[in-house]
Amino acid sequence: MGGEAARNFRATVQYDGTAYYGFQRQRRGPDREGVSIQQELEEALARLAGHPVRVTGAGRTDTGVHALGQVVGFTIEWPKGRGEMALLRALNGSLPPDIAISALSEAPPGFHPRFDARRRTYEYRLLNAPVRRPLLRHRAWHVAATLDEARMNAAAALLVGAHDFATFGRPPAGDNTVREVYRAGWRGEETDDGRMLVFHICANAFLFRMVRSLVGSLRKVGDGSWSVDDFAAALDARDRQRSASAAPAHGLYLVAVEY
Amino acid sequence: MGGEAARNFRATVQYDGTAYYGFQRQRRGPDREGVSIQQELEEALARLAGHPVRVTGAGRTDTGVHALGQVVGFTIEWPKGRGEMALLRALNGSLPPDIAISALSEAPPGFHPRFDARRRTYEYRLLNAPVRRPLLRHRAWHVAATLDEARMNAAAALLVGAHDFATFGRPPAGDNTVREVYRAGWRGEETDDGRMLVFHICANAFLFRMVRSLVGSLRKVGDGSWSVDDFAAALDARDRQRSASAAPAHGLYLVAVEY
Repeated sequence: MGGEAARNFRATVQYDGTAYYGFQRQRRGPDREGVSIQQELEEALARLAGHPVRVTGAGRTDTGVHALGQVVGFTIEWPKGRGEMALLRALNGSLPPDIAISALSEAPPGFHPRFDARRRTYEYRLLNAPVRRPLLRHRAWHVAATLDEARMNAAAALLVGAHDFATFGRPPAGDNTVREVYRAGWRGEETDDGRMLVFHICANAFLFRMVRSLVGSLRKVGDGSWSVDDFAAALDARDRQRSASAAPAHGLYLVAVEY
Repeated sequence: MGGEAARNFRATVQYDGTAYYGFQRQRRGPDREGVSIQQELEEALARLAGHPVRVTGAGRTDTGVHALGQVVGFTIEWPKGRGEMALLRALNGSLPPDIAISALSEAPPGFHPRFDARRRTYEYRLLNAPVRRPLLRHRAWHVAATLDEARMNAAAALLVGAHDFATFGRPPAGDNTVREVYRAGWRGEETDDGRMLVFHICANAFLFRMVRSLVGSLRKVGDGSWSVDDFAAALDARDRQRSASAAPAHGLYLVAVEY
């Protein structure tokens, strides 16, 4: 096993979250119940490297949440002569079909995907159509009620800037509930399946459940059960009880992490 | 149970074929192994109508094949006063999440979805990208090799008209292998996931495995292992051995049936 050295890598990961208990490894027994994305990545890397590997991720996505641009970091013993594309291909050959590496590069020593991230972008897909669409059932939240996009966008615009988002989520232990939102809004698109409303939000970081709580509350604005002022008052209240129910996980995508 | 009468309906059905053994009910035991779309529809209708119901479909889609516009017919005892939307909603409430009715109307007596159909349209989705995309793994065939769309379209153009398609499929018992193709071609689209190549084909009817065998063979033209002349010779040979391997089921969609 000569010529090997500990090398640090950063990888962009896509996954269909439907079958997983979120990104983060669960504290459960050694069986496969409650398997996470992190565990699949660590097992695939350990098979390739021949030693245990610890993977850290930029975002702790919940059960059922998808990713198009999750970023992870890891250190493995890997021959100096073997290129990054060879590692990417070997990893994709070892991962299950619902997880794939879309990009991989060597990372500077000490790179940490979560602590070093400056911005995260999430999207939430909502299918606004009279009848549900079976092919989108794990991909978008089906809402049959007619939604007013202009009102939803007026409410979303209130999110931009630094705010205390305590109404819409809880922080990691020891952290506060202030986050800075750089962009937030809906764009609607006619598709063969009905009108697809995509909520996009970019912030320095997010609280647990924040995007889904925002979308659940913005939907209330869209169907007329809340006014835009009701939404503003809920945000100002900094009270978790004032959020509407969180939108389901299967419409949420972690799309990008910037460093 | 007064006021009920036998009424004849036609419904448009969408499904994610991933979990099913195709459209047609299987000759298997009474357990749920090998469950088909037809069986799910018949069971949902029997629960609503309170009597056994026989469902016929326009196309016998294979295991794993999807539908956006399958058409089915059935006769049930249903109160004269209850509208079609009430039946559509009740059915969607009773069907599993991977099957839904998108349209429903009363049909003339003797309507038969298969024998009365004049044209069927299928689409086949092929993702041409260096890396596979987990969120599309049951929705499109991933091909990493670079494909030449102009050559694939030149070959597809040869399909238009009445031809003996024996190379590309087998007929139902007692039928011949001549079919008339009205339109066939590829259109490519850049997406966030890579280049999506969609093959669309409209014909009076199809042989078993015909679209998947055509797509498998057109892919050989696209990657340069067959010339357009090779494709033409395979079609002319009327020999099932001359087809390339069928493309996988999960890229295929029955999109419309016309009457």
